[in-house]
Amino acid sequence: MFISFEGTEGVGKSTLIATLHQILSQRYAVVLTREPGGTPLAEKIREILLQPNQEKMSDSTELLLIYAARAQHVEQVILPALQQNKIVLCDRFVDASIAYQYGGRGMDREKIDILTQNFVKQLPEITFWLDAPVALGMQRAQKRGELDRFEQEKLEFFNGVRVAYQELAEQEPDRIVRIDATQRPEEIAAQALELIEQRLKHKNS
Amino acid sequence: MFISFEGTEGVGKSTLIATLHQILSQRYAVVLTREPGGTPLAEKIREILLQPNQEKMSDSTELLLIYAARAQHVEQVILPALQQNKIVLCDRFVDASIAYQYGGRGMDREKIDILTQNFVKQLPEITFWLDAPVALGMQRAQKRGELDRFEQEKLEFFNGVRVAYQELAEQEPDRIVRIDATQRPEEIAAQALELIEQRLKHKNS
Repeated sequence: MFISFEGTEGVGKSTLIATLHQILSQRYAVVLTREPGGTPLAEKIREILLQPNQEKMSDSTELLLIYAARAQHVEQVILPALQQNKIVLCDRFVDASIAYQYGGRGMDREKIDILTQNFVKQLPEITFWLDAPVALGMQRAQKRGELDRFEQEKLEFFNGVRVAYQELAEQEPDRIVRIDATQRPEEIAAQALELIEQRLKHKNS
Repeated sequence: MFISFEGTEGVGKSTLIATLHQILSQRYAVVLTREPGGTPLAEKIREILLQPNQEKMSDSTELLLIYAARAQHVEQVILPALQQNKIVLCDRFVDASIAYQYGGRGMDREKIDILTQNFVKQLPEITFWLDAPVALGMQRAQKRGELDRFEQEKLEFFNGVRVAYQELAEQEPDRIVRIDATQRPEEIAAQALELIEQRLKHKNS
């Protein structure tokens, strides 16, 4: 089962993923991974993506680098894990590209969808979208220390990202599950866990 | 005027480009550039592409990295130079992706064309294809020292590359000019120069 986690900065994705990993690992084989990155080669691409550059990165370059890393990640990590019946917990996936590059940067959504259709061999079965007011998440992210190229974006950018997540959740209600990220971490984890167990039961029945 | 240079390894592209640069610079503003690369950021992507890796790079990753570098190169270098009426001499461009990734690796040509249509804002007016038997070029490339990830490919790969260049030249006879690369360097340069001058005269008349 392939599960991805989405949301703007500082909404508590890492905490949720770590908790689920700990609990699910007691009964299942679980692979924990993240995007962009997930393999040594894809992590090199991630470095280029996150580093604040002197040279302005073109929107197309950013998008294509993300999909280059994704293709590597799917082929080397996600598909092999799924073939071994493992649960894959992935911090960000295709929805992040739509949210950040379309919702945030204002790129054509069609261009992003074309890349997904042609170069992504596997999509998640469940996607948890941790949703909270953008300003709240930004405060939390800033407390973590130095900001990467994405975290340096302004409030308006992240508002666009959030609106795009909302749009995606409406378009794919069966896959994308919104969780109120202003709740306590234990509540968030319990909600996510319940849904995962339901789906796993359904799958195995 | 945007001019690209294509061909398999060791056919004499660099020599031709250096000669043309020297001659054309006496009368025109000329920008010399290359793919993948051409900007500091795109050169970082080039490093990832050429480095022989322990991790096998997926074909999609390779293709998407090339187009990520290309989008940056077009936006930062090629378009600004053309807007200033400069002549751009570019070592490899879109045809190389079709020749290497479709002809060499056997990827879907359609996927490559989709990337070109969506992410490449400028195509060359003239493309010189330096054509020579593959074995001859490989000998020359091997003499240059350590081989990069592409140069390490086998004869069969480069034969596929050459066949794809042939196919492209037949499909776009107005843009792609085949030059017999077994000729002496001076003959090759003279032929290319004559055509460039013709086109420039035609453009300015």
